[in-house]
Amino acid sequence: MPMKEIGIGLLGFGTVGAGVVEGLQENGDLLAGRVGARLALRKVADIDLERDRGVKVDRAILTKDAFAVVRDPSVDVVVELIGGCSIAKELILEALKLGKPVVTANKALLAEHGAELYRAAEKSGAGLYCEASVGGGIPVIKALREGLVGNEIQSICGILNGTCNYILTEMERERIPFRKALKDAQEKGYAEAEPSLDIDGIDTAHKAVVLASLAYGFAVPMKSVHVEGIRSIDQVDILNAENMGYRVKLLALIKRVDGEVEVRVNPTLVPLDHMLASVNGVFNAIQISGDIVGDTLYYGRGAGRAATSSAVLSDLADVARALVGGKACARAMVRADAQGRLRSMDEIESRYYLRLMLLDKPGMLARVAHILGENQISIASVMQPEARKGEHVPVVIVTHDAKEKNFRAALQEIDALDVVSAKTVRLRIEDFR
Amino acid sequence: MPMKEIGIGLLGFGTVGAGVVEGLQENGDLLAGRVGARLALRKVADIDLERDRGVKVDRAILTKDAFAVVRDPSVDVVVELIGGCSIAKELILEALKLGKPVVTANKALLAEHGAELYRAAEKSGAGLYCEASVGGGIPVIKALREGLVGNEIQSICGILNGTCNYILTEMERERIPFRKALKDAQEKGYAEAEPSLDIDGIDTAHKAVVLASLAYGFAVPMKSVHVEGIRSIDQVDILNAENMGYRVKLLALIKRVDGEVEVRVNPTLVPLDHMLASVNGVFNAIQISGDIVGDTLYYGRGAGRAATSSAVLSDLADVARALVGGKACARAMVRADAQGRLRSMDEIESRYYLRLMLLDKPGMLARVAHILGENQISIASVMQPEARKGEHVPVVIVTHDAKEKNFRAALQEIDALDVVSAKTVRLRIEDFR
Repeated sequence: MPMKEIGIGLLGFGTVGAGVVEGLQENGDLLAGRVGARLALRKVADIDLERDRGVKVDRAILTKDAFAVVRDPSVDVVVELIGGCSIAKELILEALKLGKPVVTANKALLAEHGAELYRAAEKSGAGLYCEASVGGGIPVIKALREGLVGNEIQSICGILNGTCNYILTEMERERIPFRKALKDAQEKGYAEAEPSLDIDGIDTAHKAVVLASLAYGFAVPMKSVHVEGIRSIDQVDILNAENMGYRVKLLALIKRVDGEVEVRVNPTLVPLDHMLASVNGVFNAIQISGDIVGDTLYYGRGAGRAATSSAVLSDLADVARALVGGKACARAMVRADAQGRLRSMDEIESRYYLRLMLLDKPGMLARVAHILGENQISIASVMQPEARKGEHVPVVIVTHDAKEKNFRAALQEIDALDVVSAKTVRLRIEDFR
Repeated sequence: MPMKEIGIGLLGFGTVGAGVVEGLQENGDLLAGRVGARLALRKVADIDLERDRGVKVDRAILTKDAFAVVRDPSVDVVVELIGGCSIAKELILEALKLGKPVVTANKALLAEHGAELYRAAEKSGAGLYCEASVGGGIPVIKALREGLVGNEIQSICGILNGTCNYILTEMERERIPFRKALKDAQEKGYAEAEPSLDIDGIDTAHKAVVLASLAYGFAVPMKSVHVEGIRSIDQVDILNAENMGYRVKLLALIKRVDGEVEVRVNPTLVPLDHMLASVNGVFNAIQISGDIVGDTLYYGRGAGRAATSSAVLSDLADVARALVGGKACARAMVRADAQGRLRSMDEIESRYYLRLMLLDKPGMLARVAHILGENQISIASVMQPEARKGEHVPVVIVTHDAKEKNFRAALQEIDALDVVSAKTVRLRIEDFR
């Protein structure tokens, strides 16, 4: 039986749109295998049909008429990546009216016109998917809607705007004023030439409204949200905060207090030992606290072509699972007939921390270094404390990457030396490069 | 139309089982509203029918016959919380054979008998759900299976055992040896009297096998995993690591290298500025890197009655969505007719950081303190640098919790003082208590 195909109509062929197309091309087989249906790009609408997006698309499926894409009978699901609050809204409403599920990354639209959109989605029953609207590739909407579905949500605290977090991180690390950090961000492409949507907290507020609406099940109006940005943060306040044991972050704060929901965006002093204080640069993180699960936190890239595409693909997979039938939700991800090649421990490469108990006599360290070298292990650094001659001293050696089997062989030789008085301690180092 | 009911058969009425029952009782309405079906506890099997679990259950549904529960026609889904690899396996296989979806927290069983279980699940098509098997309440299985479904998984690095992480954290923070930290953990109930399953890395390895199998789609054999525990970690190595800019963590490491999959568990030096280094105490965290999304990280409580129950409830919700039909996957979480009460900004409480430019004359700080007091704002601390008399100096005041409207009123008065030379800077403090 051939695999069912789900036809995609893509609205908006910009940065993220091209990323989605690339993802479908590169990981299409993987997705089909996991989901049980093939995701097929059927139509793409954009006002610019000429620009090279770095991905190959059959010109025959390109059109300037977005409404024609929505209405095309070969299109089963509509992906809205146009952005903004005018035509995007009309297109989404049209798709929902036709019973077609919609995947969107449009947080501004969801925040400004949520009531209307959620009403249309409910009436349609087709589904409005918005994983890409908050937190880029972090599956935070899924965590909120499904992973924590058994919980009453008590609070959500998030770093939701990479631009602001980059600026605040640079202000602290480089000891530079806001103006200079903003300029840096603009030069690196992390901030727009007209940066107010980000730095005045509006983008964060849009995302906060989406999260709050999903957490509490009613359309939170954007105008009810108190919003402060980071424009007026002074270097001296960042330093003061640091001295007091805090780091300044722009947070979206959503809390349930006395049966009311509090939604606000403001620069906030976060204790240095809290996970959110460790979120630096353009990364995002969202802490969600539930009445049963307690605190959970989700971290990753909050924006950009790749991260946002990953979220769109996840929504498309959910749509596909829903369209091929409920049972597919339970589709096995582990196949009985699948075979995989496991890497032998011998071949695994790692850096190593070694602690030897070595007799402090001339030439002893050279003997150890020689054994390591013979086994293709090169030394990154050595720490050897001073000691009286003739004593055994702890020597710490940190190595570069080398194979496990070489370490095993080298350590056997080293531990057999008469000048080594105890079994060498070895720990692996992970640099997450 | 009355809401469809999904009948649950619970196997194992221990700590987590009781937590699940409590969750169903307390958040049952919430779950039904979100999922579109009611989760009804129909049968509970345990060898001990007398012990008080702190939750009320109709005695008529209690039985010692677990197989009878599985076969009961009123049971649509089986929740296996017995643990271990003997009877639990037979019960799961029986349920799957009957076409009933299974929810399990049993990582040991999934790791030791994965091939057999996944085969049975695939044949059955009913679904084998295991969110509670790894990372407690952190929806990491869902992130891996669904949230990152569009990604080829490049690596997974996780702190998966709260006992080990607690011991390592205590060794570092309290400068105590392994033996003492283990004793502490046992006294606090974080470690078993016979702790080897945890501290020798076996529990972490079980979870690594579950994650690796789901990430790469084939049943990774437990015996292929290289496992080292934390028993031989010495205090001096933790200190050395710290001096070198690292923290020692027991990590599960799963990587894709040259088309092979590497799975191992070992104590690891993690760079201090990496998020995983900030995971302290009994918490777990898992970094998943995908080819499209890049690095993502998931954090929360990795064990315990509540956290594990949250994961079981999430799986039950997925089962319910699958059983009531595909469309329900897209069920709206925001209802058009729902109303929620939003908290007015005036009523929001927070601690504040205030920075005033105050004329350095006797009695000036007292005037400010008086205004704050009049507005029910109490001061937590004051930092005032020395300055020459008659100059304006920056004074930093940190307050206790107070209402926004009181701050607004107080700041209006303060900024109007002739001895205050600039608009007072105010930042909110979030202590995440």
